[in-house]
Amino acid sequence: MENTLWQHILRARNNAPLVHNITNYVVMNTTANALLAVGASPIMAHAKSEVKDMAAIADAVVINIGTVDEYWEEAMLLAAEKANELQKPWVLDPVGAGATPYRDQVLNRLLSLDPPVIRGNASEIIALAKANTTVTKGVDSTALSNEAVEAAQFLAENHNSVVCISGETDIVISKNQKISLKNGHVMMTKVTGLGCTASAIIGAFLGITENKTEAVTAAMSLLNIAGELAAEQSNGPGSLQVNILDKLYSITQEEFSGRLKLQNHDN
Amino acid sequence: MENTLWQHILRARNNAPLVHNITNYVVMNTTANALLAVGASPIMAHAKSEVKDMAAIADAVVINIGTVDEYWEEAMLLAAEKANELQKPWVLDPVGAGATPYRDQVLNRLLSLDPPVIRGNASEIIALAKANTTVTKGVDSTALSNEAVEAAQFLAENHNSVVCISGETDIVISKNQKISLKNGHVMMTKVTGLGCTASAIIGAFLGITENKTEAVTAAMSLLNIAGELAAEQSNGPGSLQVNILDKLYSITQEEFSGRLKLQNHDN
Amino acid sequence: MENTLWQHILRARNNAPLVHNITNYVVMNTTANALLAVGASPIMAHAKSEVKDMAAIADAVVINIGTVDEYWEEAMLLAAEKANELQKPWVLDPVGAGATPYRDQVLNRLLSLDPPVIRGNASEIIALAKANTTVTKGVDSTALSNEAVEAAQFLAENHNSVVCISGETDIVISKNQKISLKNGHVMMTKVTGLGCTASAIIGAFLGITENKTEAVTAAMSLLNIAGELAAEQSNGPGSLQVNILDKLYSITQEEFSGRLKLQNHDN
Repeated sequence: MENTLWQHILRARNNAPLVHNITNYVVMNTTANALLAVGASPIMAHAKSEVKDMAAIADAVVINIGTVDEYWEEAMLLAAEKANELQKPWVLDPVGAGATPYRDQVLNRLLSLDPPVIRGNASEIIALAKANTTVTKGVDSTALSNEAVEAAQFLAENHNSVVCISGETDIVISKNQKISLKNGHVMMTKVTGLGCTASAIIGAFLGITENKTEAVTAAMSLLNIAGELAAEQSNGPGSLQVNILDKLYSITQEEFSGRLKLQNHDN
Repeated sequence: MENTLWQHILRARNNAPLVHNITNYVVMNTTANALLAVGASPIMAHAKSEVKDMAAIADAVVINIGTVDEYWEEAMLLAAEKANELQKPWVLDPVGAGATPYRDQVLNRLLSLDPPVIRGNASEIIALAKANTTVTKGVDSTALSNEAVEAAQFLAENHNSVVCISGETDIVISKNQKISLKNGHVMMTKVTGLGCTASAIIGAFLGITENKTEAVTAAMSLLNIAGELAAEQSNGPGSLQVNILDKLYSITQEEFSGRLKLQNHDN
Repeated sequence: MENTLWQHILRARNNAPLVHNITNYVVMNTTANALLAVGASPIMAHAKSEVKDMAAIADAVVINIGTVDEYWEEAMLLAAEKANELQKPWVLDPVGAGATPYRDQVLNRLLSLDPPVIRGNASEIIALAKANTTVTKGVDSTALSNEAVEAAQFLAENHNSVVCISGETDIVISKNQKISLKNGHVMMTKVTGLGCTASAIIGAFLGITENKTEAVTAAMSLLNIAGELAAEQSNGPGSLQVNILDKLYSITQEEFSGRLKLQNHDN
């Protein structure tokens, strides 16, 4: 798979996939910059009067509920429905799942549209599966990572999604595959919105390959390895945020392949 | 007090206080990053459907009217009321007070909820006291700094607030205390939203100590000393913004205590 | 003209023109920072309850439709009408013109108010002229750059606008003048929102000179030369974004004049 991942990275650079983001205010600038750095063309647009038209011209849609409100919720649903109608891939980033009843209600509506890809941290993925109360009795495993994996498997099976649980180790789960990714750097947790950036880059790769698992794996590995390389040159999270953008833009095959830590578990 | 301030800085790093921000679009990214850098956990959320729930799980709430509109105004009031109901601390940042009648009307509504802490520049603090026309005939001192101090004292007495007037010298005023802080660097005025960042960091410290004056003093000193140290390594305001985040994250007790310029005036 | 441009740069630094921006979420932070770096005072405000008051106290207004929706559309129209009423200059940045019918409808309404300055890339300027269907039968030239120039000339004549087509070469067009600017660096296309930053800086210069063509030319040249200088010190688009802000703040007459590539075509 290693070689394929690098081919996807080159394809993103050469094909400039158009990624329509309905995302949160906190990360719009850094997300747009990350998409440009990997070669994609970002669009940020949320007006109900145009989200369907934007989704229609995009190669992929990214929906991130970080600063959702009632208006944006409707815009997100319109875009996701249009993407489904046109069989375009889209990513759901369930930021803050479980934090408030409203957030879970929004997520239930989005989940009912069967997101092709979902990416969140362990607690978000668990909350997302639990929020989906109409079809599940909940996840009752005790250990957090096991619980998250079970939640992800539940989502993969019930919504035909590829699910990425991000954390110190990222786990990519589909109906019949499980991949562990062990790249990244602890200081990345001190930069706001790198999870959101990951979801956006997944959108870029969904725009250049139909293999959703490979798209997720390429995006996560690219961002995490860029983060490792950037951290070596950074004095703190401020410079890390800047240096990651530089590395996403300039990373070479040697840098990428030499550091890739990927484990493909048979399922 | 010097030693106590450093203890608060350590406590923020170790306790990860949850800070709920209803703030302006311009500073959301840098504010979230500053909160992460000092060890806090930022939430940005403004939906009327969830702001009360978010305020309820937060350790402190930060309300900043920089890009307020009619919807956000209502969300801010809901969050502030909930914070009061649960006796949670909150900070008001009256960005642009006095610039338009609408802004003053919003501020009057927020002031009526007696913000535990208020931080603004001299002209904002003066405008805020003047806007509060139902209970004051206005502040009529002539010299701007005196006028701002009188305005702050008026707000402290009538709303039981700790008020910080930020500027070349920051002045922290409560009913019975007045502290001058002389740290900072002139280039910080060329970085957008450092005042907003100050208010957010005050929120973080309100989450780890009940002493509001110490929380404000620790936050202002930390940001200003980080700014001084960062300015020495910066070629302009772009790199200063980045380097301040690095310093907020890495500052040591020696760096902090060696530079602290604090004067506690008896009142 | 070269000397005049540098005088405008100094005037912006000394006079701190107040620039009222109704712009998109993606660029608010970097735009505000760029305005501060050139010496201007940025205001970001969009509430329908105050946009007219803000426009009234500003020296110039910048309207950028990047993340427009139905609410912001009305706010933009209110601010532009107020600017016209008070004969204040304003800039239209038609981000994404032509991408959706909604966007073109918004632009038609704004165009009907005769923007004193318009800045966009070639495809946006062409789409803007085409969107203006009530008074034009469309632009039918075949080569993109020629088509853009014709579109700009159409807009200049029908709306009394100074139009800037930005690209590898920037072209500034008014009823009776055409200027080519050949500064800039290719990596600038990998930083989000530098076009929006250009429009904002144009706003700053409109606040210190009544000569709209010179304001546009000074703004574009300043940003592009800052970009060239910054690129020499940057490892990628992340550091480029930061270094451009530093250079906007610190650029000297020697750096500016030594690199300026300006060609004034007789019309």
